Amino acid sequence: MRRFIVVGHRATTSGAFKLDDLSGSTGRLDVLLCCINSSFFLSHDIRREVEVHLILLGLPSPPKTLRFVGSELKYLNPDERSTGALVRNALMQKIDVEDRCSPGIYASNRSYKDVLSIVSKESQMIYLKEDGTDIREFDFPEDVAFGDDQDLTPEEEETLMDYRPRKLKIGPISYHADHCVTIVNNEIDRRGRLA
Amino acid sequence: MRRFIVVGHRATTSGAFKLDDLSGSTGRLDVLLCCINSSFFLSHDIRREVEVHLILLGLPSPPKTLRFVGSELKYLNPDERSTGALVRNALMQKIDVEDRCSPGIYASNRSYKDVLSIVSKESQMIYLKEDGTDIREFDFPEDVAFGDDQDLTPEEEETLMDYRPRKLKIGPISYHADHCVTIVNNEIDRRGRLA
Repeated sequence: MRRFIVVGHRATTSGAFKLDDLSGSTGRLDVLLCCINSSFFLSHDIRREVEVHLILLGLPSPPKTLRFVGSELKYLNPDERSTGALVRNALMQKIDVEDRCSPGIYASNRSYKDVLSIVSKESQMIYLKEDGTDIREFDFPEDVAFGDDQDLTPEEEETLMDYRPRKLKIGPISYHADHCVTIVNNEIDRRGRLA
Repeated sequence: MRRFIVVGHRATTSGAFKLDDLSGSTGRLDVLLCCINSSFFLSHDIRREVEVHLILLGLPSPPKTLRFVGSELKYLNPDERSTGALVRNALMQKIDVEDRCSPGIYASNRSYKDVLSIVSKESQMIYLKEDGTDIREFDFPEDVAFGDDQDLTPEEEETLMDYRPRKLKIGPISYHADHCVTIVNNEIDRRGRLA
């Protein structure tokens, strides 16, 4: 399984947003939707072996975590707006322990620490970081989880370090989170998992 | 210079569309906007050495070509809607020979053949294709132009072949056009151009 963990520090935790304003009043939920797109979409297929955790930390009721499970996903389309509608639907439901909101989409009130604790039980944690080892030289285990450094607070980084992540870099410069996901997917594809 | 050529066979050639409906009535202009995003955006910068040609072939008045020049671009933001607004503004203007519509964005009525004829004068043409040579084994010249195979008609492919493109593949499976752009950018970054 390939798992991606993406943190939206300002991303809304309410479903009361307009689909016409995804980049405005939602705390840049649109950036997270791009990560969903690059995590799952192939030219004519959806990646079934991918799982994504979007951790939403914005107002009014953080934390909320949306878990997307590739093997179960339905109704996911490449356009931002339709994925936004699935997220809005999930956030409109009463969320407590993890509940299934639509096929392949689960919502919970899990925190960043909760998610790391759960994911690290099954996956080798990987921290995408500019000063890491080149990803092309890394021998991937079967089950990996990637977190991006771009927005981690010092406290969040400290929490991640407790799980002894491997630090990997994907290029000589800093990329957007969704572009990181695309490049990581391509690298693992090349190792023959999907060839 | 890195040049990307993207063809939108159904993409609207009128600026009379709603920004709230970018994935609906525009002939999937949203897909082309994703290519703009992956062509230009770094984590904290815009790629100045990139040029993108969006060739729009949808109704009502094809062809139209929008040329985005990284070294001149202003007002470009990562969200789909604001890039959509720049495209709409360009398409609302009277377009004949190539005119500058906003900083770094030029519109013309150039056809697919016109664009290839112009770009191939300065660039080694590259055709991203599943049966090509691995991009990681390719010795890049200074000036390259990439076209994607996903939507080329047989006639368009034949035209491209006149320019003796190098066929390169970027992985063992087929990717969305915008993901191809991200992976190509990463590969060239690694060759030290931006290190």
